[in-house]
Amino acid sequence: MCGIFGVTHNSRASYLAYLGLHALQHRGEESAGLVSSSGKTCFRAVAQGQVDEGLKPDVLKKLEGDFAIGHVRYSTAGGSLERNIQPLMAFNVPAGEIAIAHNGNIPGYHILRRSYQRKGALFYTESDTEVLLVAIARQMQAGSFRSRFLTPGRFARCVDKALSPIEGAYSLIFLTKDFMAAVRDPDGVRPLALGRLNDGYVLASETNAFDLIGAKFEREIRPGEIFIIPRKGKPQSFFFSNSKLETRNSKLFSCQSCVFELIYFARPDSRVFEKDVYRARWEMGRSLARESPVDDADCVIAIPDSSNVQALGYAHSLSLPLEFGLVRSHYIGRTFIAPGQAIRDFTARLKYNPVRGLLEGKKVVIVDDSIVRGTTSKKIIRLIREAGGAKEIHFRVASPPIIWPCFYGIDMPTRRELIASRRSLEEIRRFLGVESLKYLSLEALVKACGAKNGSFCRACFDGNYKIAAKAVKRILSLEKKR
Amino acid sequence: MCGIFGVTHNSRASYLAYLGLHALQHRGEESAGLVSSSGKTCFRAVAQGQVDEGLKPDVLKKLEGDFAIGHVRYSTAGGSLERNIQPLMAFNVPAGEIAIAHNGNIPGYHILRRSYQRKGALFYTESDTEVLLVAIARQMQAGSFRSRFLTPGRFARCVDKALSPIEGAYSLIFLTKDFMAAVRDPDGVRPLALGRLNDGYVLASETNAFDLIGAKFEREIRPGEIFIIPRKGKPQSFFFSNSKLETRNSKLFSCQSCVFELIYFARPDSRVFEKDVYRARWEMGRSLARESPVDDADCVIAIPDSSNVQALGYAHSLSLPLEFGLVRSHYIGRTFIAPGQAIRDFTARLKYNPVRGLLEGKKVVIVDDSIVRGTTSKKIIRLIREAGGAKEIHFRVASPPIIWPCFYGIDMPTRRELIASRRSLEEIRRFLGVESLKYLSLEALVKACGAKNGSFCRACFDGNYKIAAKAVKRILSLEKKR
Amino acid sequence: MCGIFGVTHNSRASYLAYLGLHALQHRGEESAGLVSSSGKTCFRAVAQGQVDEGLKPDVLKKLEGDFAIGHVRYSTAGGSLERNIQPLMAFNVPAGEIAIAHNGNIPGYHILRRSYQRKGALFYTESDTEVLLVAIARQMQAGSFRSRFLTPGRFARCVDKALSPIEGAYSLIFLTKDFMAAVRDPDGVRPLALGRLNDGYVLASETNAFDLIGAKFEREIRPGEIFIIPRKGKPQSFFFSNSKLETRNSKLFSCQSCVFELIYFARPDSRVFEKDVYRARWEMGRSLARESPVDDADCVIAIPDSSNVQALGYAHSLSLPLEFGLVRSHYIGRTFIAPGQAIRDFTARLKYNPVRGLLEGKKVVIVDDSIVRGTTSKKIIRLIREAGGAKEIHFRVASPPIIWPCFYGIDMPTRRELIASRRSLEEIRRFLGVESLKYLSLEALVKACGAKNGSFCRACFDGNYKIAAKAVKRILSLEKKR
Amino acid sequence: MCGIFGVTHNSRASYLAYLGLHALQHRGEESAGLVSSSGKTCFRAVAQGQVDEGLKPDVLKKLEGDFAIGHVRYSTAGGSLERNIQPLMAFNVPAGEIAIAHNGNIPGYHILRRSYQRKGALFYTESDTEVLLVAIARQMQAGSFRSRFLTPGRFARCVDKALSPIEGAYSLIFLTKDFMAAVRDPDGVRPLALGRLNDGYVLASETNAFDLIGAKFEREIRPGEIFIIPRKGKPQSFFFSNSKLETRNSKLFSCQSCVFELIYFARPDSRVFEKDVYRARWEMGRSLARESPVDDADCVIAIPDSSNVQALGYAHSLSLPLEFGLVRSHYIGRTFIAPGQAIRDFTARLKYNPVRGLLEGKKVVIVDDSIVRGTTSKKIIRLIREAGGAKEIHFRVASPPIIWPCFYGIDMPTRRELIASRRSLEEIRRFLGVESLKYLSLEALVKACGAKNGSFCRACFDGNYKIAAKAVKRILSLEKKR
Repeated sequence: MCGIFGVTHNSRASYLAYLGLHALQHRGEESAGLVSSSGKTCFRAVAQGQVDEGLKPDVLKKLEGDFAIGHVRYSTAGGSLERNIQPLMAFNVPAGEIAIAHNGNIPGYHILRRSYQRKGALFYTESDTEVLLVAIARQMQAGSFRSRFLTPGRFARCVDKALSPIEGAYSLIFLTKDFMAAVRDPDGVRPLALGRLNDGYVLASETNAFDLIGAKFEREIRPGEIFIIPRKGKPQSFFFSNSKLETRNSKLFSCQSCVFELIYFARPDSRVFEKDVYRARWEMGRSLARESPVDDADCVIAIPDSSNVQALGYAHSLSLPLEFGLVRSHYIGRTFIAPGQAIRDFTARLKYNPVRGLLEGKKVVIVDDSIVRGTTSKKIIRLIREAGGAKEIHFRVASPPIIWPCFYGIDMPTRRELIASRRSLEEIRRFLGVESLKYLSLEALVKACGAKNGSFCRACFDGNYKIAAKAVKRILSLEKKR
Repeated sequence: MCGIFGVTHNSRASYLAYLGLHALQHRGEESAGLVSSSGKTCFRAVAQGQVDEGLKPDVLKKLEGDFAIGHVRYSTAGGSLERNIQPLMAFNVPAGEIAIAHNGNIPGYHILRRSYQRKGALFYTESDTEVLLVAIARQMQAGSFRSRFLTPGRFARCVDKALSPIEGAYSLIFLTKDFMAAVRDPDGVRPLALGRLNDGYVLASETNAFDLIGAKFEREIRPGEIFIIPRKGKPQSFFFSNSKLETRNSKLFSCQSCVFELIYFARPDSRVFEKDVYRARWEMGRSLARESPVDDADCVIAIPDSSNVQALGYAHSLSLPLEFGLVRSHYIGRTFIAPGQAIRDFTARLKYNPVRGLLEGKKVVIVDDSIVRGTTSKKIIRLIREAGGAKEIHFRVASPPIIWPCFYGIDMPTRRELIASRRSLEEIRRFLGVESLKYLSLEALVKACGAKNGSFCRACFDGNYKIAAKAVKRILSLEKKR
Repeated sequence: MCGIFGVTHNSRASYLAYLGLHALQHRGEESAGLVSSSGKTCFRAVAQGQVDEGLKPDVLKKLEGDFAIGHVRYSTAGGSLERNIQPLMAFNVPAGEIAIAHNGNIPGYHILRRSYQRKGALFYTESDTEVLLVAIARQMQAGSFRSRFLTPGRFARCVDKALSPIEGAYSLIFLTKDFMAAVRDPDGVRPLALGRLNDGYVLASETNAFDLIGAKFEREIRPGEIFIIPRKGKPQSFFFSNSKLETRNSKLFSCQSCVFELIYFARPDSRVFEKDVYRARWEMGRSLARESPVDDADCVIAIPDSSNVQALGYAHSLSLPLEFGLVRSHYIGRTFIAPGQAIRDFTARLKYNPVRGLLEGKKVVIVDDSIVRGTTSKKIIRLIREAGGAKEIHFRVASPPIIWPCFYGIDMPTRRELIASRRSLEEIRRFLGVESLKYLSLEALVKACGAKNGSFCRACFDGNYKIAAKAVKRILSLEKKR
Repeated sequence: MCGIFGVTHNSRASYLAYLGLHALQHRGEESAGLVSSSGKTCFRAVAQGQVDEGLKPDVLKKLEGDFAIGHVRYSTAGGSLERNIQPLMAFNVPAGEIAIAHNGNIPGYHILRRSYQRKGALFYTESDTEVLLVAIARQMQAGSFRSRFLTPGRFARCVDKALSPIEGAYSLIFLTKDFMAAVRDPDGVRPLALGRLNDGYVLASETNAFDLIGAKFEREIRPGEIFIIPRKGKPQSFFFSNSKLETRNSKLFSCQSCVFELIYFARPDSRVFEKDVYRARWEMGRSLARESPVDDADCVIAIPDSSNVQALGYAHSLSLPLEFGLVRSHYIGRTFIAPGQAIRDFTARLKYNPVRGLLEGKKVVIVDDSIVRGTTSKKIIRLIREAGGAKEIHFRVASPPIIWPCFYGIDMPTRRELIASRRSLEEIRRFLGVESLKYLSLEALVKACGAKNGSFCRACFDGNYKIAAKAVKRILSLEKKR
């Protein structure tokens, strides 16, 4: 889980990129980085922690130039070390410097890395992103493309040649002194939107970043598209040679887009995969109400803020009153949790507090967006019952049980830790300690997302890994042995 | 606006106080401080910024002892300088060290300060709190009370003698090596709750701090009460000699309690003045709906999170659908705003983003909790109309127009800047750019707060300053001349 | 041990004060502070650590105004807490703000503090300096001096009335919005020099601070003098009513000046007490050579840099070759010393390294300036013998044995820890492990300092405490009991 | 100019390396870095600034393992960016991680870098060290050496094959999980000493690092030697195939050792190139006295601390008295120099202060170690004349005029800025403003260093660049054109 951003032809490029990362901060709080380009040279600044912590005004001031890209990171591959913070940047003579920001994941990139190392490549980070960078750089150095002037067409061919053999999920933004490039894998797993701001272009994982800086959404970068914005001249669009023909011009392209972006990850005010997140979530709540209503409930409450919209859809459909029964604290980011902490359910308490009196003796429906491990849900439920005084608690989940881990960029625990992979519905109900528990059906979920013909990757629900299937199989079997 | 906290007889006192400050963080983000006591000596740590920023684990470790008090600050009197950060602490021989944490404000404390200076007192801060400390210290040093052993009774008499002549709003927590003391002014302007945790006591501006650490709410400290918790022996309750008799034992004591705590300042999951904030706000929304409904509205939206509950009450009463039409960012605390920022309504955009599509072409009711300057409201409204595409916007405010500044501890601008003090309802409506604008009546507000016989300070609405009236008059007339 | 500095009538006052503190850095590395005045208000910045660490350019920029004072601190009374960092500043209406920087020590200030507390004064620091400030403030508030306009004459009378009854060592610089004032105790224990820079005045503990900023030394502030430099008009000189008449105009005034300033504390390029430190030290070395020569020595080495000049004087007088046999590291300030450090004599090694080969098999004379505990000397000697390979080591000390602690501002251990207070010369020799050991006689020391008639405080050598004798006696008897 | 250090088989390896860097701190204050190895994995920490600033105890704690290497840096090639801080580390499968610390410089490394980039290598830093790393890595990956287990013999062959074609100055320490390796270029330009500590080995640029940690000097790594210390088993020594046969076993190996290490760069308590620095400097002073005595001089003074020993040798040879006429401040490292600084000769004043009175009216000889630009010397001379009051100043330089820049690792300005490259002796004398000026002859210098048969690189004096002559010629001709 990461967020990427880019802006071109703007005298305040690095500041706008900083704001863009702000808007994408929910996609990763572990580190943040920016690279800007003045047309002659690139400037890079990266730091651990949230955007505000590491990228101070004095740092921004040094990021000169009118092109800039940024990255926020929620570590997947590669630990939390400084050297893994993106954008990565290399000094590669034919093109000068090249920087890359990556959202997604390459299952089994270790094997690829080893093969490049055998060819004499050195690696300085543990991240899968460096593998993509090396793959492309080697193409750029190869005889046919070697040249001081890298045309968009040449670069697109490099990318195609380098990445076509690599299976995985990637939305990428590149920056060189001559152009910015946006690339999406042919399966379109992670989102990447294109917008306009004055004379320049804007790229962002989610459209709420456009709203903040006053940019206008234009369209999603297509699956398999290589979109290049040169410093001078018009942008040009290319496609991977192995991209699906039907995705190139039509809107029906979300072949393997990640449904979890719509369920949980994206902000409700964003559009991703050309869908309104808010509408999709409201629809999930409504479908859940239809499939699993609760009779005579006194009220519906959400787990703020992640299931607010689903709970609203649920409550509205059943004409039940919604209540803000849990208050969420917004200061807890860096709260120090003392070792030997003796307060029960403390981590849940830190974040959520039930409104006393409000739920006293009531029959309450809690609508959540999903259950991963189940441990936090259990703590919240206990808070609502003990501190809040609810009489009956009915738990409704606006997505199906998560049974399989994600290998395409969503940070999920191993199979063993996914509660639904080793417990039955009834067992989970008892574990959570609720009067009833229901999940949304996979069918209804996909319908709520507006998908018609089997699009969306839903491997976490059905185990049907369509991308890099072999690598995924190997990782799963290794996990099993442990 | 500040938050104060205290905990006694607990081996993790300073850590619990740290957590308590967390829960009260919304009452002040400018600075935070802690003082602990081991029974022999006191330890102090203060820092600018939020609790987490300045009070790191290594700092906490040094705050030994089983009694601790804390303070978060939203500067009122005294600038943002380091020396003004509370708790203040003095070295005062008869009682040893004494620390003080103060929520409230003393109008005209400059005059008091000058008179003490004439008697030879030095002042090291600009805060009104130091005046209270000096007043009490001088009593403690005076012949009749001078003694190495300060009994609760003696301290209570000192406080009574020292503070009775001082008019103002103050909830105080004192810490010495021998005891902790909680004091509320006879008018009960600012809240202060008493709770229990294991064998000790807990004090907090709001009860949500009790919830976080698992403490049990017992009662509100009474107006005019001086409640002393000695290290050994039972707590004792005393009263100011000029406190109202009827407040001492009954529950009808909120003579001049600040109604703005219920409207905006306190968290919805707190109890203040022995009232549930959530219920009061829901009721404000319902009363507003009765007084000023909107016909044929498509939906109701709140300004998250401050008017969530009022909007819910409003929508529910009129059976209108609530929508989460604005999404609030929780990362903006320290966002760097570049000088010469060119993005229109940028400060509002940073915090709020309308959900595109959702409000398109609709007749929308916005419910807000109050209007102070009106400038932010205007920006939000413009965002909702331009970016959100709303066709009609009807603005409903769940409190009356604020016409007068507060001198009792709520940070408000001068009269001139209060939009309702110099513009008519119609002028404000045009300024905001809405189809209609209505405020809640003062009568309905007080009723929503559950008050029966004229209690609550509402000077900000009606200009009826009952406390330190002379000092307030002087300040107001000085403001006018400028 | 502290250093103080002041500069007036200079548009770069706070920067010059920053440089002045630099030059005085050897007088205290624990904390540094500056207060500047613009004629309207005062600005203060203090920080722990060396001048460069805490007082960064962005901090300096805020210290507006054309008058500034500074202080570097080597903690004596008052722990290393932030609140004790000088200059202290109080808000004292008649004079507005008043800041104080203090070099010296008040033995028994605890008793004075208690008496002021009985009169209602609060204390916020543990430092003896605050006692002086309170004493003066109370005089300023007293009937006869109370006035918004504080003339130099009035302030001088306040200082006289307040400090005459207080026995101790103090060189002080005060800053208010209207003037700067320099004060030295009637015994002249600590130095304070007056200089000129363009149209303004400069004050500094040592004259090397004048050299750095290009100021011209004028004269030493006299013992018992109160020298006031008003913002407008000429400076005026006053004297304590109990000051010695003969010190007012003559040069023979160093009644109780601290001889240790000349032995060790001051920089060799400074003048203190109107004496050249370099010459005095050279003379100490020469006298030591006369009293205690070493026959057939191969070379003389100093403990760099503190006994360089004495060693030169010694070597020159005996026509022995000086060698730089020990190399001193200048990076060790903040070296982390790991617990359980296993390297022998590590703390000495960190600072000093003998030049291998140079002393191999030689008969070496080491000249040191003084011996306090003797532990470091022992380690250095062992290094020179073991690593350096010296055959014979003769230790010569260019001052008498230190038998008594200092109560006037030099940081010394308790009597018990002073090696010469509990061991005979022969015992010390054996402890150090040298072939011979000799000290300079007290007579020769005083003569080397150019003193004629019994001036200089030498209580550390002879126990003759002439200042605050009663308080010193009490402290000594308390120490004994422990 | 850099310092490198390594230690093996010691449970406190990273702490000892930290101390080692301390001892080498004078070789580079710009950045510091450490890499440790536990036998399984490597840990790296680097930071800008001095060792103490960036490498705090909490950082050291994370550097596990019993092998460690370190580097202090005084930037030569590659700017002051974070990514250029050494040791560099790469992830290179056959050998696992490999870290490198480099002292020296590769003239014309840009060209080499470009050729590797053409073969598909990416570069992440601007430093010449990365070129060496890539060169070796490519050999390691090459068919003949590819293997999971890298024997010392195989690694030595890789190094030989990779570095033999690269002309330049380099002393290197490598660290992998299996061994540490020390490498010196066949010309032996930069020093690298080998020592023993308990069961392990120690490597350091200068032997004073051995003294600090109690290690024993064994010998200098030979020019062209590749010395490998495996985790298990005995160390093995290999030689470059193009190394000179005579250097392998004899002591006469310093073919092109940098004479400037002995003149200025190394500490006087170190041995470098198996020569005592102190003795060499004393001899330079004595030879200078013979070649250029000053009649009737009153005293000799050094520029502390760099020419102390030379001045002593000079003074002693002529039986002139040495005086510590300049006092050096040791606090100036990070002094903020305000823009528009108006104090004359300020940068010199900050560092040096003449002792007033001492030199008044005297005929003074100043002995300096060398003159580079001449600007600082000029300022010091002016200080001594104006503030110090010297009547005559005779300047003696204990090395020949520097006419040519260094391309082998000493940070020197371009030819244009070297005062002796564009001015005659008489012009320099007038520029400096001294009564007379003399340099030491090149012949005498080399003799003072104990060299017999034309060893030592002295290109800075005679322009005879023997290493990478072609690359040097190109750079010099480019410089000329500018």
